[in-house]
Amino acid sequence: MRLVSTLRTPAVIVQRPVVARNLTRMADRAQARGLALTPHIKTHKNSGLARWQVESGAAGIMVSKLGEAAAMLAGGLPHQFIGYPLIGPQQEARLAALVAQGLKPRVAVDSEEGVVLVEHVSAGTGVTIPVMVEVDTGFHRCGLEDVDAVRRLAEFARTRGIPVQGITCFGGHISHRSDPAEIIRLVQAESEILARMRDSLERAGFADLVVSEGGTVPAGYLDAVTAATEIRPGTYIFNDVAIVKAGAATWDDCAAQVLAEVVSTPAATRAVIDAGSKTLAGDGPIDESFGYIVERPDLKIERISEEHGVVVRRDGGPTGLKVGDRVHVVPNHVCTMINLHDQVVLADGDTIVGTLAIEARGTVR
Amino acid sequence: MRLVSTLRTPAVIVQRPVVARNLTRMADRAQARGLALTPHIKTHKNSGLARWQVESGAAGIMVSKLGEAAAMLAGGLPHQFIGYPLIGPQQEARLAALVAQGLKPRVAVDSEEGVVLVEHVSAGTGVTIPVMVEVDTGFHRCGLEDVDAVRRLAEFARTRGIPVQGITCFGGHISHRSDPAEIIRLVQAESEILARMRDSLERAGFADLVVSEGGTVPAGYLDAVTAATEIRPGTYIFNDVAIVKAGAATWDDCAAQVLAEVVSTPAATRAVIDAGSKTLAGDGPIDESFGYIVERPDLKIERISEEHGVVVRRDGGPTGLKVGDRVHVVPNHVCTMINLHDQVVLADGDTIVGTLAIEARGTVR
Repeated sequence: MRLVSTLRTPAVIVQRPVVARNLTRMADRAQARGLALTPHIKTHKNSGLARWQVESGAAGIMVSKLGEAAAMLAGGLPHQFIGYPLIGPQQEARLAALVAQGLKPRVAVDSEEGVVLVEHVSAGTGVTIPVMVEVDTGFHRCGLEDVDAVRRLAEFARTRGIPVQGITCFGGHISHRSDPAEIIRLVQAESEILARMRDSLERAGFADLVVSEGGTVPAGYLDAVTAATEIRPGTYIFNDVAIVKAGAATWDDCAAQVLAEVVSTPAATRAVIDAGSKTLAGDGPIDESFGYIVERPDLKIERISEEHGVVVRRDGGPTGLKVGDRVHVVPNHVCTMINLHDQVVLADGDTIVGTLAIEARGTVR
Repeated sequence: MRLVSTLRTPAVIVQRPVVARNLTRMADRAQARGLALTPHIKTHKNSGLARWQVESGAAGIMVSKLGEAAAMLAGGLPHQFIGYPLIGPQQEARLAALVAQGLKPRVAVDSEEGVVLVEHVSAGTGVTIPVMVEVDTGFHRCGLEDVDAVRRLAEFARTRGIPVQGITCFGGHISHRSDPAEIIRLVQAESEILARMRDSLERAGFADLVVSEGGTVPAGYLDAVTAATEIRPGTYIFNDVAIVKAGAATWDDCAAQVLAEVVSTPAATRAVIDAGSKTLAGDGPIDESFGYIVERPDLKIERISEEHGVVVRRDGGPTGLKVGDRVHVVPNHVCTMINLHDQVVLADGDTIVGTLAIEARGTVR
């Protein structure tokens, strides 16, 4: 029996009992409200965990790019919501190949080019591929903001014979906040936008529309989610500092942690751990720290280099850390952290119970 | 003959002629001043490029962690400066195994624990392993700041029979600046600290000391480098936005670029490209942008998500970009960008001439 405490550092440890609890809780919460649960697998990129999500009550999975779609299809998961705009002849050929291999996708679109790509793939493969029109609820990334533009794109899809299954959004502007009242206000505003978009489409003759909302933070405030029929959280399987700060999880819900070791204590007030931006990812500081040190919340990771984390005490006093000491770090953003690693350790407390390959790691195309 | 312009995006393109020029220029510059050149391979993590560096005039290579050391040893590069503190029984066993396989290391130390580890490995393998005492010249990461502490650690090594080959530093506090006068002042101050440390060790009886300075930015201001006998730049092989902003390279010297495609134009003033923090890395904005768009310096990447870059015009006007348009992006920090990819494309202009495996990718242990 190998023990976590004997691993070389830095090591990414995923606690299986915490994952189990996170999956069950979200599935129960969605079921209690009659919401379909379609987890985004970009957080873990492992088909075994994706299958576990489906077995725990998820209706299907969401992926971003086709590289993730291919990895998940190979892992036995054909029902996928592809949430990323597919554009151009290369993506068209690749989607067609995946559909020929058994992929059953629905695809987000926010342009006529995206609809035409789906039309071509449907015609070429003989497989009906519905689209979800992406709407902008305030994040101002992809998605159409104007209600008439959304209706016109849906009507364009209808004229090309492509089924419009519904509308989709990602409220990224809600995700990096820490005031619950503000989060609730933004989730309510998102719900109102989604309802207005849906009503407009229904007046134009579209029926049985799926209204799909992304993000673990809104999924933590379901009282304010009034228009959606589907939620697509990703981070909830592991959680991270951003999710805890937004009030959508607790530290005990953070399933993926980096085990790091003190390698240098050049001053009493400063220690250096062997986890930097190539281990934790470079997402900016939260609460002045590049991660939450589980054993010592009085410390912060003040700066990171590629392989170094510079640790100081929040009050400036001596850290008390010695060379060789080990700490567990909850990453600020678990999705980018996991994406740095080829495999991570699955554990139950200090007992190693397996290895998780990050199968879709690096599949940015 | 495959062409870069036919690649699926996002793709990382390394221009071979630019690499050749960067390697030759740095080697010539070091040789003209009688400085040993020991490039840090963490930027590219590819043993073929490391061998090219040695063939172009480098005296050896530098690595951070033992995972990089193992990959470079397997690639035929035994002479390595291991610049990262090696601590604990696991690193000791691993270093011993690598030395048994032919590694000829010197090792940075900033603690007695580090010296004792080297002593154990030397005793166990019968191979003499010199140490370089790491000094802090103002970055306040690893390294000893006090001149007497440096001398005491060197004397400790001598009492344990470990040769002290010299002193080493990394002036990270110099690297992220854009005012040449300020950079020159800091490089001069670093040189003065290094000279003081060296003089103190010479008075204590240490001779023939290597004085080693890291970083591509100081290597761009060699008039101010007056104490060093060795330089260890890493980023210079590719360069990036930070290096250009510091005046140590030009845009034409940026050998590694991300080819990205516009996937969404939801507003005339906003376009979305298919490169985000999982492609470009999450290092913070420089000049308000998460990368430099070669074709369109009037644009900036205002925000990134995992797979999205949100592009706007600096003056707020229409971007002029259409879905399907392609751009080349110089990353803010090329070392963390490269580390996200399993392989990158080697090109000469639009012609693909090979593939570079990022062999030591993910070797954070």
